[in-house]
Amino acid sequence: MKKITIAVDAMGGDNAPDAVCLGAVDACRDFPDIEVILTGDEGRIRSILVPVPSDVRSRIRVVHTTEVIGMDEHPAVAIRKKHNSSLRVAMEMVRSGEAQGCISAGNTGAIVAGGVLVVGRLPGIDRPALATLLPTIEKWSLLLDVGATVRCKPENLYQFALMGSVYSRKILKVAEPEVRLLSNGTEEIKGDECVAGARALLMRSALNFQGYTEGNDIVWGRSDVVVCDGFMGNVALKLSEGIMQGLKSLLTEEVRKSLLAKAGMVFLAPTVKSLWTRFNYEKYGGTPLLGVKGVVLKAHGRSKEPAIAAAVSAARRFIEEDGIGQIQAELDTGPAHGE
Amino acid sequence: MKKITIAVDAMGGDNAPDAVCLGAVDACRDFPDIEVILTGDEGRIRSILVPVPSDVRSRIRVVHTTEVIGMDEHPAVAIRKKHNSSLRVAMEMVRSGEAQGCISAGNTGAIVAGGVLVVGRLPGIDRPALATLLPTIEKWSLLLDVGATVRCKPENLYQFALMGSVYSRKILKVAEPEVRLLSNGTEEIKGDECVAGARALLMRSALNFQGYTEGNDIVWGRSDVVVCDGFMGNVALKLSEGIMQGLKSLLTEEVRKSLLAKAGMVFLAPTVKSLWTRFNYEKYGGTPLLGVKGVVLKAHGRSKEPAIAAAVSAARRFIEEDGIGQIQAELDTGPAHGE
Repeated sequence: MKKITIAVDAMGGDNAPDAVCLGAVDACRDFPDIEVILTGDEGRIRSILVPVPSDVRSRIRVVHTTEVIGMDEHPAVAIRKKHNSSLRVAMEMVRSGEAQGCISAGNTGAIVAGGVLVVGRLPGIDRPALATLLPTIEKWSLLLDVGATVRCKPENLYQFALMGSVYSRKILKVAEPEVRLLSNGTEEIKGDECVAGARALLMRSALNFQGYTEGNDIVWGRSDVVVCDGFMGNVALKLSEGIMQGLKSLLTEEVRKSLLAKAGMVFLAPTVKSLWTRFNYEKYGGTPLLGVKGVVLKAHGRSKEPAIAAAVSAARRFIEEDGIGQIQAELDTGPAHGE
Repeated sequence: MKKITIAVDAMGGDNAPDAVCLGAVDACRDFPDIEVILTGDEGRIRSILVPVPSDVRSRIRVVHTTEVIGMDEHPAVAIRKKHNSSLRVAMEMVRSGEAQGCISAGNTGAIVAGGVLVVGRLPGIDRPALATLLPTIEKWSLLLDVGATVRCKPENLYQFALMGSVYSRKILKVAEPEVRLLSNGTEEIKGDECVAGARALLMRSALNFQGYTEGNDIVWGRSDVVVCDGFMGNVALKLSEGIMQGLKSLLTEEVRKSLLAKAGMVFLAPTVKSLWTRFNYEKYGGTPLLGVKGVVLKAHGRSKEPAIAAAVSAARRFIEEDGIGQIQAELDTGPAHGE
C-alpha cells in the first residue's frame, strides 16, 4: 500500500494542540494508508498521544518546533521570521516532498503567505485562492476566493474560475461544473470594471461559464463554482455563519421563554438538528488553498476533533486524486489563457 | 395642520399599480397630515381608487404619465429618455418642491440615476448611497451603501459614514451612533486600499468611529451604522435574504415530510412566525437614497400594500424631521472633511 504523508500543524487553532492531535489520530484510525507528521511542542504532543493504540501510533511522527504563529500576528512577517514555527515547518515538509500535503487551523493569512513563500505558486498562477465548499439548497457549491487574495485583477478571478472548475470536476466529481461570477445583479450591465473584465476573459474560455450570479443564488446553489475576490468571499462566508449562529441562539432563547415552543421543539428537534447539521460549515473540515505547488488545507480556527479528521481526510483525497497535477495540467494544456 | 406631500411612482414594482396605490391609500388613512400624488396610468389608478372613502380620496391626486421604466432597462438611459415616465415625473415633483419626497418600488438603478440627475446631489456629496435598516440580534443597524455606488473611493465611504451617522442620530434617535467599516477582519492590517483610506479619514473625523467590522457582526448588530461599497452591500443584503428564504423553504419541506415535525410545528408556529417577522426585511418599507437634495425612498420590488404604506410612513418621518436639512447642516458645519 502506497503511504500518503500529511503534515499537521499541531499548534494552530483555538483548540490546539489537543483537538488537533486527537483529530489527526482519528483520521489515522479511519485511513490505514496515511501517515501523519505532527509539528509542535513535542512534550505536549507526546502526552496527548499516550493513550493512542500502537498500531495507529506507529503511523504518527512528532517533529518538535519551538515557535508558534499567533492568530493576531502579521502573516507575511511571521512566516518569514519564525523559521521554527509549527506552521512553517509543516509547510517546509511539503516543499521538500517529505509530506504530500499539510493542514493548519491557525492564522489564515500566515497559511496563505506560507503557501506562496514556502510551498510556492504554481507556474501560471499569479495569486492563490481559498476555496470553501458550501452546502446549498440544491447541491454543493465551491466558493472562491474566501480570503487569500483580498482584491483581484480580472486575470486573478479568471484563474480562480479555472482552478475551481478543475477542483469541482476532479475532486468533487461534477461532470461539467457551472461557473459564475458573484456580482451585484445578473444582467450584463452589472458588476464593476474588474468583474466585467473577468467576465470577458471567461466568455472566451472553454469553461462552462454562465455569467453573473447574485448573493441569494449562493444559497440556492445554482452554480457549482462561484468566483469572487477574497474581500467579498470573506464577508459573505462570515455573514452566512453569523446568520446561522444568530438564528440558533435566537431560537434557543425563544424556546426557553415559551412552554408551548418547548413542547414543539420536542417533536421538531430532529428536523432542526438535520437542518443545522446540513448547514454547519465547520463539519466540512478543510478549505484548500488553490494555486500552490502542494496540498495545503486550512481548517476552521474553531475546529474540534471531527473537523480536523475531516480536513485530513480531504487532504488525503486531494493527494490521492493528484489535484495539484490536474490543475497544473489544465493550466498547461487546457482552455486558452485570457491574455 | 401643515401638509406633507409625497409623490408615489404608481407603476414601479412587481405588484404595481394595485398594491402601490392601495398601500398609499393605507398610509393616507393612517396619517391625516399627508397628501399623496400618484404618478402613472390615470385610468388604471382611478379604477383602483373607486372604493376609497372620500375623506381619504380627497388627499390623493393622480398625475397621468404615459411611460414606465422597466426593471431591466439601463437606468441612466431610461431616466434621461423617458421624460414622461411615472418615476421621472414623481422625481420632478421633488425637484420643483411640489412634493417633499417620493417613493418608488421600481428599477433601483433608475431611482439612483433619477436621484442624481433629476433631484440632484447635495453640495459636498460626490456619490449617493442607499441605506437599509437591518434587524439584528441586538438592535437595528443601518447598512449603507446597498447598491447606489458600485465601487467607491475612500472619500465616498467617508461621506456614507457621515450621512448614515446623521440619519441614525436624527431619524432613528440613536444618541451616539457607533460607525464601523465592513472589512475582511477587525485588525488594522485588514482591508484593501480603499477601506484603509476611509479608515484613515474616519479616524480623523468627529464621528463615533469604531474601526472595522466583519460579516458576522452585521448579524449581531454591534454597530449602529455599517459602511461598505454598493457592490458588497448588495451581495450581503441579497445573501441574507436568500438564507432566510432558503431556510423557510427547507423547513416547510422537512415539516411536510415528517408527521412528528408537523406536530411540533403546531406548537412552535408562533415562535417561528415571530422570528420570521422580525427578520423579514420586506416589512420595513423604504430604503432612503442619501446624498440627494430631497427625500427619495426605494421600496422593495416585491412590496405589497403594507410595505408601500411603511415606505410612505418612513418618507413622512424623514420629511417631518428635516432629514435632508440635518445632513446638509452636518456637511456645512459638522465634522471636518477628510483630506
